[in-house]
Amino acid sequence: MIRVALDVLGGDSAPDAPIEGALAALEAWPGELEIRLVGPPDRIEPLLQGVPREGISILPASEVIGQDEPPALAVRKKPDSSIVRGLEAVRDGEADALISAGSTGAVMAASVLILGVLPGVNRPPVGALFPTAGGRVLVLDVGAHVNARPEQLHQYGRLGSIYLRDSHAVAHPRVGLLNVGEEAEKGDDVVVAAYQLLQADRRIEFVGNVEGDQIIAGACDVLVCGGFVGNALLKFYESMAGFVVGVLRESGISRQAELDRILRFLDYTEYGGAPLLGVDGVVIICHGASPARALKNAMRAAIDSVGSGLVPNLRRALEETSAGLEAREA
Amino acid sequence: MIRVALDVLGGDSAPDAPIEGALAALEAWPGELEIRLVGPPDRIEPLLQGVPREGISILPASEVIGQDEPPALAVRKKPDSSIVRGLEAVRDGEADALISAGSTGAVMAASVLILGVLPGVNRPPVGALFPTAGGRVLVLDVGAHVNARPEQLHQYGRLGSIYLRDSHAVAHPRVGLLNVGEEAEKGDDVVVAAYQLLQADRRIEFVGNVEGDQIIAGACDVLVCGGFVGNALLKFYESMAGFVVGVLRESGISRQAELDRILRFLDYTEYGGAPLLGVDGVVIICHGASPARALKNAMRAAIDSVGSGLVPNLRRALEETSAGLEAREA
Repeated sequence: MIRVALDVLGGDSAPDAPIEGALAALEAWPGELEIRLVGPPDRIEPLLQGVPREGISILPASEVIGQDEPPALAVRKKPDSSIVRGLEAVRDGEADALISAGSTGAVMAASVLILGVLPGVNRPPVGALFPTAGGRVLVLDVGAHVNARPEQLHQYGRLGSIYLRDSHAVAHPRVGLLNVGEEAEKGDDVVVAAYQLLQADRRIEFVGNVEGDQIIAGACDVLVCGGFVGNALLKFYESMAGFVVGVLRESGISRQAELDRILRFLDYTEYGGAPLLGVDGVVIICHGASPARALKNAMRAAIDSVGSGLVPNLRRALEETSAGLEAREA
Repeated sequence: MIRVALDVLGGDSAPDAPIEGALAALEAWPGELEIRLVGPPDRIEPLLQGVPREGISILPASEVIGQDEPPALAVRKKPDSSIVRGLEAVRDGEADALISAGSTGAVMAASVLILGVLPGVNRPPVGALFPTAGGRVLVLDVGAHVNARPEQLHQYGRLGSIYLRDSHAVAHPRVGLLNVGEEAEKGDDVVVAAYQLLQADRRIEFVGNVEGDQIIAGACDVLVCGGFVGNALLKFYESMAGFVVGVLRESGISRQAELDRILRFLDYTEYGGAPLLGVDGVVIICHGASPARALKNAMRAAIDSVGSGLVPNLRRALEETSAGLEAREA
């Protein structure tokens, strides 16, 4: 039984979408999870009228951190916010994971502050799952760190591999390095050096450089990149679904069933949320615009992450990587 | 009358696609252009059988530079290549513009070597036009320069504005800076500094930072970014059209007319080619997979670029920018 703390105040459609997502998850995976709804009881109770309460509890929190607030400051100033209270529950062993569609910056800052980081991580990367022709690709980092060093890009490859294995049952994730060409010597100094580190690490299934047009084609399962380019790609991808539907409508394709099927392929909500990798706890960050479906799917990733021992596995991998790096440097 | 040198050996469908594109352009814009087909006469002549020869001439060239050859080396080793011969014609005043769907790296290297660069440019950026909801956006740089300095990003804003004004009749191009957030202090040191330079330049209509999800929405006409992220976005965008069509087919939408209408919106061939800005001549680089239609549309951009005085206008702008920078630094 996995206990998930769900931030009820996070996201554009809070508290309705989180609560609806929670109820859908409880129905879909009965007996697998308990959900602690983190937020003001007086706003949550009315939405639970007539709903069976098994597997649901409320963890009171009165404050919300807005998307526009400076993250670190907001976390310190709002100790009774849903993000802070939810993470404290994880830290104190009262919950196994936090899911939030609130401010990404605030969730990141609060996670580092409250849960702490795993060995060798200074800023935990955020991974985002893009649907692809063959399945999905985990792109990381998508914005935690605008300038990553080669050692960090290498670390992302390790972290992403373990996340996909533990949370999405990909036995041997293929890791690619985003670059402007296929050859090992392409790109700037950072990616050239990262290529060598990834290539030398036998615990990673490194498939080499991956160019922008190979992402959707499914050239790899984990795409390693710096946070600046990762963030641009993620937001660009997300905007595509709406654009394509607009184009389809203009082309006279307006039957909802067809649009729905098409959207499903371009739909970031399919995978629910982006894991924050490298903090000492399971944290899944959902898009601010997440509908209930995305929050429900994030629960699945949380169940699998906790059940497979993601955090201890990441800790072990990071200790090995650090040891390996020190051995190479010595 | 604009004289265009067209590389007949460049691209995956050479020489058929270039020649077909040339004939389509001559038919579409009679009296506006003359085309010099650069390539081996014995391969060109058979494709001109039965075609009226007005406006067409052949400039012999026997060698082709492949996509996989190291650009600078290939340019030196193959003096009789279509790219080199075409650029020499531009340099010697025998043609007003070069269009090539050959190796981007080779066209860039040969352009710098043969035409030279305009004042203040060390590596000319390549701009690519993305179709958007409202029209198109010129993204530059898309790969000439993996690491751009703030002064270069500023320069891209100037170059891109002038190109859109002169070649695409956009009276007041809005310039955006690709970034991970809207606020001026977002991003790494390079983009933070570039923001200030763009903001301070009153000759540019600077609209501030633009995030990945605002590109397709049409938030700006010129999107300034480093070559690494620009290249990733361009290739990602290009791969989307094929992906979407695959999804549509799976969804049971397979009528060619509908697919064609949809593709037109996602189609990079709509705008023909990417200008190489900052060399002393009009050079338009087309995608290697360009069909005849893209090459035809590149002719339109070439006609307008030459007709509007793009190169002298760019030269003047660069001299002003350099003077402005020196004044600020003094």
